[in-house]
Amino acid sequence: MDLTKLLKPRTIAVVGASEKEGFGGDVCRNILSYMKESDNVYFVNPRRDKVFGRPCFPSVSHVPDMVDLMIVCTPQKTVIPLLEEGAKKGCGGAVIFASGYGETGTPEGKKNEKELLEKAKELDIAVMGPNCAGYVNYVDNIQAFAFISEKRERKGNIGVVSQSGQLCLSMMDCPSMRFSYNISAGNAKGVQMEDYMEFLAEDEDTKVISLYIEGVKNAEKFVDVLNKAAAKKKPVVVLKAGRSSKGQAIAASHTGSLSGSDAAFDALLKKFGAVRVEDLEELTAMSLLLSTIPGLPGKADFASMNLSGGETAICADVGYLNGISYPDFTEETLRALKELLPGYATPNNPLDMTASLSYDADLYAKALETVMDDPNVGMVLIGYTLLYEIADPAIHYMYEGIRKVVQKKGAQCKPIAVIPFAENTRNPEYQQKLFEIGVPVLPPPVYAFKMLKKLSELVTYDYAAASHTIALPEKSGGRTYALSEHESKMELKAFGVSIPEEKIVTSPEEAAEMARAAQGAFAMKIESADILHKSDVGGVMLNVSGGSEAYEAYGRILENVRKNCPDARVNGVLMVPMLKAGTEMILGVNNDPQFGPVIMVGMGGVFVELFKDVAVYPAPVNKKEALELLRSLKSWRLLNGYRGQKKCDINALCETIVSVSKFAAANKNTLKELDINPLFVYPEGEGVGVADSLIVKYKE
Amino acid sequence: MDLTKLLKPRTIAVVGASEKEGFGGDVCRNILSYMKESDNVYFVNPRRDKVFGRPCFPSVSHVPDMVDLMIVCTPQKTVIPLLEEGAKKGCGGAVIFASGYGETGTPEGKKNEKELLEKAKELDIAVMGPNCAGYVNYVDNIQAFAFISEKRERKGNIGVVSQSGQLCLSMMDCPSMRFSYNISAGNAKGVQMEDYMEFLAEDEDTKVISLYIEGVKNAEKFVDVLNKAAAKKKPVVVLKAGRSSKGQAIAASHTGSLSGSDAAFDALLKKFGAVRVEDLEELTAMSLLLSTIPGLPGKADFASMNLSGGETAICADVGYLNGISYPDFTEETLRALKELLPGYATPNNPLDMTASLSYDADLYAKALETVMDDPNVGMVLIGYTLLYEIADPAIHYMYEGIRKVVQKKGAQCKPIAVIPFAENTRNPEYQQKLFEIGVPVLPPPVYAFKMLKKLSELVTYDYAAASHTIALPEKSGGRTYALSEHESKMELKAFGVSIPEEKIVTSPEEAAEMARAAQGAFAMKIESADILHKSDVGGVMLNVSGGSEAYEAYGRILENVRKNCPDARVNGVLMVPMLKAGTEMILGVNNDPQFGPVIMVGMGGVFVELFKDVAVYPAPVNKKEALELLRSLKSWRLLNGYRGQKKCDINALCETIVSVSKFAAANKNTLKELDINPLFVYPEGEGVGVADSLIVKYKE
Repeated sequence: MDLTKLLKPRTIAVVGASEKEGFGGDVCRNILSYMKESDNVYFVNPRRDKVFGRPCFPSVSHVPDMVDLMIVCTPQKTVIPLLEEGAKKGCGGAVIFASGYGETGTPEGKKNEKELLEKAKELDIAVMGPNCAGYVNYVDNIQAFAFISEKRERKGNIGVVSQSGQLCLSMMDCPSMRFSYNISAGNAKGVQMEDYMEFLAEDEDTKVISLYIEGVKNAEKFVDVLNKAAAKKKPVVVLKAGRSSKGQAIAASHTGSLSGSDAAFDALLKKFGAVRVEDLEELTAMSLLLSTIPGLPGKADFASMNLSGGETAICADVGYLNGISYPDFTEETLRALKELLPGYATPNNPLDMTASLSYDADLYAKALETVMDDPNVGMVLIGYTLLYEIADPAIHYMYEGIRKVVQKKGAQCKPIAVIPFAENTRNPEYQQKLFEIGVPVLPPPVYAFKMLKKLSELVTYDYAAASHTIALPEKSGGRTYALSEHESKMELKAFGVSIPEEKIVTSPEEAAEMARAAQGAFAMKIESADILHKSDVGGVMLNVSGGSEAYEAYGRILENVRKNCPDARVNGVLMVPMLKAGTEMILGVNNDPQFGPVIMVGMGGVFVELFKDVAVYPAPVNKKEALELLRSLKSWRLLNGYRGQKKCDINALCETIVSVSKFAAANKNTLKELDINPLFVYPEGEGVGVADSLIVKYKE
Repeated sequence: MDLTKLLKPRTIAVVGASEKEGFGGDVCRNILSYMKESDNVYFVNPRRDKVFGRPCFPSVSHVPDMVDLMIVCTPQKTVIPLLEEGAKKGCGGAVIFASGYGETGTPEGKKNEKELLEKAKELDIAVMGPNCAGYVNYVDNIQAFAFISEKRERKGNIGVVSQSGQLCLSMMDCPSMRFSYNISAGNAKGVQMEDYMEFLAEDEDTKVISLYIEGVKNAEKFVDVLNKAAAKKKPVVVLKAGRSSKGQAIAASHTGSLSGSDAAFDALLKKFGAVRVEDLEELTAMSLLLSTIPGLPGKADFASMNLSGGETAICADVGYLNGISYPDFTEETLRALKELLPGYATPNNPLDMTASLSYDADLYAKALETVMDDPNVGMVLIGYTLLYEIADPAIHYMYEGIRKVVQKKGAQCKPIAVIPFAENTRNPEYQQKLFEIGVPVLPPPVYAFKMLKKLSELVTYDYAAASHTIALPEKSGGRTYALSEHESKMELKAFGVSIPEEKIVTSPEEAAEMARAAQGAFAMKIESADILHKSDVGGVMLNVSGGSEAYEAYGRILENVRKNCPDARVNGVLMVPMLKAGTEMILGVNNDPQFGPVIMVGMGGVFVELFKDVAVYPAPVNKKEALELLRSLKSWRLLNGYRGQKKCDINALCETIVSVSKFAAANKNTLKELDINPLFVYPEGEGVGVADSLIVKYKE
């Protein structure tokens, strides 16, 4: 969808321009506060000649120019005639604040929405909203926003799309934020959120994409945009409602968004290196961090420099709690620091520079440069509480010290951020000065180190190594049916999963014959898609060996099943060579209706149940991704030679994960879920053993 | 120690009063900014007649009054003569800013410190510092602080003691903070941190005690104060350096504090219901929350009310991530809310009230009252971003709505807090107005819900149910020795731990005889305090039954040990009836040099190693505490009838924990560590089995 006339119009008509409070008045006030006289903005209102001293035209038709964009501040019933009138003036975009559409949940609202969308399509007008707060394009200085925000320099490179207008406004109200675009998608029934995302991904003025999402409507485009942004290394920061069931319900009732499972969404973001945050403050601050630093750190290793012992200890501890890497300084760095710092200082990382450096910009710069030059350091964190209410003479020296280093280093300067120890005492003047030299001021430590951990993950994210496809289902849902164990295994076998030779026997004689011919023992299991819990109904006998045992077991199993599940359709009894026990894993797939099959792998039994030690990732996965999944488990060490035990056959396990993920991707339209439980993993070179498997599919 | 003259002096002499920058000038400026003319403050400086227009005396002796407190702004070498002079004027307290003492790490500094302390003791003067930033007593308006802080209403009920002067200043600079006392303890070599804590615990003007700690010096008093505060339900909020090894090193080099293990400290705080926080922002905000609300919520169940869907979803999700309880509203509440809210709203908890309530204080008040009256609700959280930079007409209605409810409810009003979604856009005017009606404005959600989780723990903390003693060691350290398995078990048996009948045999014949006489099999283990890893040296044979097996096993064990540990002193072979396997736990004690024995309990094996699923608590513990420890484990469900398995004998396990903790407490001066690993727990009614035990003690 071409959004040029909507988001980068050359001419604008404000329909319903007014001096009163409300949409019409506030849009005019915003426009007059920010825009230049030369901008081609026309006010339209049949009941006025002038608005705030500017000429006002009785209708869009009267505007003495073509009209790219209409900002419609009038009620719902006026909208369709306006679109028709606008179309004749070449209008290609409309911002519609009015409510009274799908969000009401009423039949009439739905009818209005349908009519609006049909008309917009017919006239080829890109509609923002309805029921939205509009947008601001800071690049071209276009104010199409429904609420007043304080006049302030705002142009930057963060592109925001939000499904909550309130959150758009809250971000605008953050004094330090700088935007390329800030878009309130509203109902997003005309132009969808994913269309705006695509625009921002391609937009050269946007360096960071910042999203508040309640639900994804166009999964294919969503994935495509994440992929494009990842390829370009354009960070995407995402706040998504629905981590909790209550959050999901709220998102659904707010914008009527039905979203897939949070785990699937999370896995998707992980695959494309998008940064997920937890609240608006983190969304704002993370976006600002990525927007302000000149580039990502070369490595995710941090140096922390502070002026007091207490602050240094906080950085050490909160960094540790968030898994931040503070490498040791080299001997050379330590020597150089010892010369710069007072005798009683103990140079270390994190570094207590002591207050003696507070009043000497040159010394401060030298210390900063020394730390930055350490080859172990990827980024420098300066602990400093910017005070705005009391005189803080030291702030000037600190700033000057940083500025000297930034200027001297030029393009070689490693990223720097300032961490204040208390939030509500910032100094906006110095915050702005620091921003201008590429140094963001983060929120205090609990937020800051959480964000820096995510920055670390972004630094180590390797787009080239990831698979870039997602198996998005074209359809999903409906009635389901289960495959039998044997059928399930055979499906997996066809995709390369190693399955032991097994056979369905249909008489006690056949069972006996097979057991006699074999070396080892068998597990004998009732073979029926109707029986999910085979053991519970007496449908399983283990360690059966020899002809007579097998003969008898066959009879017993059939008898148990006839008694306990008289209606089950039975294919016979599956005879599987007894697997030796190995390390027990589980490997599963959940097919998300929206984002497709998601692989889930973890250590079996209580590890999954009590410790939730599982890793999830969208299918298909490649072998490197499979290994990363395993390495992300807390129980990884149990696979990798724990306490002198033999290493497990991780290679075979990874291959199994890859094969299962290929099966899942190939069956994206029909698979509901898949479970291999347990999956035995044997010592290196000895492979894996699928002990049981269950596939549930949708009926075609 | 009597701190009255130090902290609540009737007369004060500022020695080194000045108009210049530095301690002398800044103290005078602070005093003149804040204190009343009637206050008995005397400036002293031999080189001036007047300071800031006030008379200045050439020496303390010249002050025409008794002098309770001297604020000493002059260098180290002047201090002792000043103390001597002051003593003659009745001086009982001195604030000493000067450095040049123990913090330098030099012999001279240490000598200076020793002389200072001896002199202070001789003269009975309570010395704050040296090398401190002083204090402010906001109750009596006494400014003895070395740095300028902006003139501002500051009197409240938070009592701060900090081992970092910088953090004291940062707390003062937080516009919303209100203090009773803010004390920078400095080196805390005269009056110790624990003395200030005791003062605040007893002080009627202090409602919340707020601490930054690098190390505890007087563990006994520290514990005593925590106990006193807990008994009085006076909350103690603690930021302590040393969660990480790097943080510990920094704290040690900063104030020379050697602290015990962080786990022991943490366990101690837990025992006394003190609140541990992670950074200064959280210390400030948590203190302010506890200071501002009129009382703790009756139950730790929250209602969340917001004006937009996006904000409501954030509260739902971040609350969930922090384990916050959002009870369902009753049917009655839901009915009442449906009447108040627009038709399209879906009342729920968290509640999206929709923006339609933004401009109607009465309606807002009704909604708030309805939610507050819900019997399931203990506290109400109002989501609202206080903007200070743009016009926000709604803020007035929100405030008025809250005020109406607070006034109407009076003492029956449940606690309320406001959660903004972005920090840096607070409105100080309304923040203050809300503060005045007992409604704190918290930091944004990531902090806020973390704090509310801690508030929940405080609400459910049950002082009456906890044991109030701690086994603080009088001495600790030195060379250690290990007890043999049998010796270890016998020590535990004496304290009531159930130990199977076992015997040391010293010949193969004796082993054979014992085995012949018994029903079951035996574990035979080399009995030697010199061999810690008995299995590794072939010193253990399991499942030995019958005379000949036992005879042979004896020989084999002795032979292995002779070969592998030729120097070990051997008492014989321990014959223990084979324990049946049960649920494997570990139970241990670490004796912290400062805080004494700490019990550690967890599920055995990988659960402890990989998942760190252990609970720690100071000894001695009572049975209720033991049960709480077990319930706090992630693996608790494995004990409590997991997936239809029999419940474990939790009662016997608790009794064992209690007995071990009693043993540890009784041996607080000699025990280094104790391990029972594994401790088998059997099904309900069948007790526990100590399979192995090791005690290490200090040599007396």
